[in-house]
Amino acid sequence: MQYYGAIEAGGTKFVCAIGDEALNVIERVSIPTTYPEETMTEVINFFKNYELKSIGIGSFGPIDINKESKTYGYITSTPKTAWKDFDFIGSVKEYFDVPIAFTTDVNASLYGEYQKGIAKNVDSAVYYTIGTGVGGGAMMNGRYIQGLSHPEMGHMSIKQHEDDDFEGNCPFHHTCLEGLASGPAIEKRAGIKAKDIEEQDKTWDMVAYYIAQAAYNTTLMLSPEKIIFGGGVMHQDHLLDKIHKQFEILNNGYLNLPPVETYIVKPSLNDDQGVIGCLGLAQSEYK
Amino acid sequence: MQYYGAIEAGGTKFVCAIGDEALNVIERVSIPTTYPEETMTEVINFFKNYELKSIGIGSFGPIDINKESKTYGYITSTPKTAWKDFDFIGSVKEYFDVPIAFTTDVNASLYGEYQKGIAKNVDSAVYYTIGTGVGGGAMMNGRYIQGLSHPEMGHMSIKQHEDDDFEGNCPFHHTCLEGLASGPAIEKRAGIKAKDIEEQDKTWDMVAYYIAQAAYNTTLMLSPEKIIFGGGVMHQDHLLDKIHKQFEILNNGYLNLPPVETYIVKPSLNDDQGVIGCLGLAQSEYK
Repeated sequence: MQYYGAIEAGGTKFVCAIGDEALNVIERVSIPTTYPEETMTEVINFFKNYELKSIGIGSFGPIDINKESKTYGYITSTPKTAWKDFDFIGSVKEYFDVPIAFTTDVNASLYGEYQKGIAKNVDSAVYYTIGTGVGGGAMMNGRYIQGLSHPEMGHMSIKQHEDDDFEGNCPFHHTCLEGLASGPAIEKRAGIKAKDIEEQDKTWDMVAYYIAQAAYNTTLMLSPEKIIFGGGVMHQDHLLDKIHKQFEILNNGYLNLPPVETYIVKPSLNDDQGVIGCLGLAQSEYK
Repeated sequence: MQYYGAIEAGGTKFVCAIGDEALNVIERVSIPTTYPEETMTEVINFFKNYELKSIGIGSFGPIDINKESKTYGYITSTPKTAWKDFDFIGSVKEYFDVPIAFTTDVNASLYGEYQKGIAKNVDSAVYYTIGTGVGGGAMMNGRYIQGLSHPEMGHMSIKQHEDDDFEGNCPFHHTCLEGLASGPAIEKRAGIKAKDIEEQDKTWDMVAYYIAQAAYNTTLMLSPEKIIFGGGVMHQDHLLDKIHKQFEILNNGYLNLPPVETYIVKPSLNDDQGVIGCLGLAQSEYK
């Protein structure tokens, strides 16, 4: 029997999976992200046991998604130096001569939710990961929003909270969304682990304010039907409610939108959205 | 002979035009925006002399562009009370039973530049009008970016300049892009007419900073091939250069982009982009 292959390539680990036509995960493996030679050897060994129709890759980035480019399928200027200029598609193609879909990790997660999750019945949706970094992807009528390159929404310019004097930790933009609201930014500001910051601490009001601005600017620019926030920071259960409240304050009645609880949501696939998305992308690429 | 009709409906004036297959403007008229009955009577009288294939409307807003909606083709919650809930398509259809395209004024201008102007050979472009208000539209592979509704980019949340203590003049969001950088915001801050503010005045550095943030957030969210800034405020010849400089500072080498002079540009059709866009939309609607 033939299967689809998924590679969800994150900065900490690669999750590889085998899936069927219904995008069910049949087998999976988690491989630490070390050096390309080492990590990719394990990736190849995992897939060797199967006959694959196609493979879908969702990768940390920045990546080159321009099919006309000489470096299409590469990870480009990542701060993870071992992976800089890594020919991702090429290194897979060497062993598996099948169609390969290639996009960002966050676009893959979005596609998972779009295929089988909370964005299943909508025409347009945006997905953010708020974690070690902040990334975003958008889809409209089944196509990714992209142009010269993929979006980099995590570096959006937003207002800093009046009580926040944190200098920001983005090396390029200091107090952009990622510089103010990523996991490392939260911990650096508070001086303790995010999980140890109390629910009532004003840190969370600041973080909610930043994420709500991201949601509001997304609404103003794309007017999607759904905005999904995933990633480690969103594992704080109280945070989504705070984001909803800040979003309503920002909108101040200007736009007539769906109820905020159904509009700004968390992913619904138990952190499987990335691999399911990669399987879905593999399936589209095959067809 | 049959022609295409264009209605560029602005808050101050309506420009109506007749065009041929090559989207050349054959005749035009400018009509003050007063009350629907009065203005529309003049609009209808202008078109009565021609046999029309179809009509393209680019309207001030907000407007209802959802074809499934009962109020499709209406101007909705505009502060211009006489035009609130005005059935624009219906009032034209009553006299001309031809296909009618309906979009925002800024989307029409974008389409003009996309058809015959500075965005002619690109797959994705964004157009902002910085004038009495601030509006934006985006196109990707020949389709408008929209979802629940059309974009409202003018109300984007951005950082306020450290030397700017202006309270902003957007009734909903105070210091959003429009609240800080529209024509009225510039004049209220300076206390004099925009045309009387000297080129070296720091007002323009602030305005450039705000418009550059709009451009940068647009790049991060949509990654278009071209960003176009039109509208009255952009008639200040020195401003574009200041925006370019601020944009480079904001990017700080993070994204690899085309030269800023070819990436962030002004419209190229001598303020005809709106009517040409409406003619183009009429043509697509007919086909």
